[in-house]
Amino acid sequence: MIFGVDIGGTTIKIGLVDNLKIIDKYEIPTKKDSLIKDICESLRNYMKEHNIEKIEGIGFGVPGNVINNYIYNLPNIGLKNIDLEKEVYKYFPNVVVKAQNDANAAVLGETLYHREYQNACMITLGTGVGCGIVLDGKVLEGRHGVAGEIGHMPIAEEYNFACTCGLKGCLETVASATGVVRLADFHRSSFRTALPYKFSAKDVFDLAKKNDQLCLEVIDKVSYYLAKCIAILAITVDVDVYYIGGGVSKAGSILIEGIKKHYAKLSHYAVKNVKIEAASLLNDAGMLGAAGLI
Amino acid sequence: MIFGVDIGGTTIKIGLVDNLKIIDKYEIPTKKDSLIKDICESLRNYMKEHNIEKIEGIGFGVPGNVINNYIYNLPNIGLKNIDLEKEVYKYFPNVVVKAQNDANAAVLGETLYHREYQNACMITLGTGVGCGIVLDGKVLEGRHGVAGEIGHMPIAEEYNFACTCGLKGCLETVASATGVVRLADFHRSSFRTALPYKFSAKDVFDLAKKNDQLCLEVIDKVSYYLAKCIAILAITVDVDVYYIGGGVSKAGSILIEGIKKHYAKLSHYAVKNVKIEAASLLNDAGMLGAAGLI
Repeated sequence: MIFGVDIGGTTIKIGLVDNLKIIDKYEIPTKKDSLIKDICESLRNYMKEHNIEKIEGIGFGVPGNVINNYIYNLPNIGLKNIDLEKEVYKYFPNVVVKAQNDANAAVLGETLYHREYQNACMITLGTGVGCGIVLDGKVLEGRHGVAGEIGHMPIAEEYNFACTCGLKGCLETVASATGVVRLADFHRSSFRTALPYKFSAKDVFDLAKKNDQLCLEVIDKVSYYLAKCIAILAITVDVDVYYIGGGVSKAGSILIEGIKKHYAKLSHYAVKNVKIEAASLLNDAGMLGAAGLI
Repeated sequence: MIFGVDIGGTTIKIGLVDNLKIIDKYEIPTKKDSLIKDICESLRNYMKEHNIEKIEGIGFGVPGNVINNYIYNLPNIGLKNIDLEKEVYKYFPNVVVKAQNDANAAVLGETLYHREYQNACMITLGTGVGCGIVLDGKVLEGRHGVAGEIGHMPIAEEYNFACTCGLKGCLETVASATGVVRLADFHRSSFRTALPYKFSAKDVFDLAKKNDQLCLEVIDKVSYYLAKCIAILAITVDVDVYYIGGGVSKAGSILIEGIKKHYAKLSHYAVKNVKIEAASLLNDAGMLGAAGLI
């Protein structure tokens, strides 16, 4: 039995995995000041409560730069330089610890789940926007650990919103959960809406399904930028399938259909027929892929 | 002995290669209606003139889509569906024929030349803009043969010039040889210039070195879009080095320095220190890489 831990900007998803299947899962909130401590104590409590004496390993998917289980940077949480093995060994001295970028963990999870595509990208829409790239069945990590960090493609310069990375106009400033909220605030004065003044990305998607003008406009913009990003990926890494996963993707068909509509117009003729689809595992891909690292 | 044939939009570069070194080379013009015939007849004449009785193979770098030596599309020349082996066998029945996208041939040539970087992109600026990607020493072809077709990244939408591919705002519309001329025409009324009304990309670079205002502005724009493209590649495939090659790159340091200046501002913090440099082989990379296919 293995724990798969998918660290997000607002919540941490924890799955108990046996034989590459998630047999139980729960969430805890992400707290900057006690991140690894919270996770390890929670795992210890879980094991006690469920009479689990031993686990084989703990796999982590983390939203940032990680090389050889050392976390260099978690920009959306505001942490740097975490020696993950050392921190986890304080609580679990004899356990195998492995970590990957969360997007890489997610694409691994997705390709473990359906095996017909060994060339795939999995775009994860959460607090940030990430992407795991699998080429011939192997995760592309990149020479600086940032292969697939598409959230920072400078392709939303019409808005030029400031990004957590220090740049402006990054994809993530418009296509993440916070990006969706930002776009709705930006366009609020130009469209009719039933959106309250305090709202979440989920509210935007829910109201769009009820034909709210502002929310429809926001989703059209988000779809446009994601389609542009996929059009770029398609002529750069040229894979078979682009999965859309992560919290924002819970919006479902309204987002996928919007992306497909714009992709048809923005894409190169040789790659018109790629697959763009919702990730099958939705929020579970990260946990499964993280566990799959062990 | 092998012939390496690098087909470009305006000229075809032919090199005689022995032991992975180019021992002789010449050029012929690209003619749409007699492309393969011209090449083969020229090779036959060359062999006769130089008393060469036998060659091992002919490698081709072609500006378009090629899978298994079948050319699907040469958009900049206006040709489609060429069964290269069949056509070449009419002239050389017993020779080995291999073909690759010209950008892939060029990056292969460059990595054959200096071996320290096995993760590299080679951006070729000619009639079009192409890019060959090498990951762990292997050319990334992509599932539709268009991996690295960065010329069609939709990242020059401020201009939104029409591209040969049918889209608008592609990188190639501003950063190829024709793109340079197009930008100079577009900005001519806003800047002082000594540029005549009929001019080439080379004229723009030559006059820029003499501080011509219009030409400096054009090169700054070209550098900006290439830097933006490299910033995107750096967080997508994340390699060590980006070589700039092809005809337009003959402009030399003025272009490379411009790209580096903009890259410093546009790039993600994790990949600030990548290498951006002129291709060592300049125009010979395509020929050498094409020959290297055999």
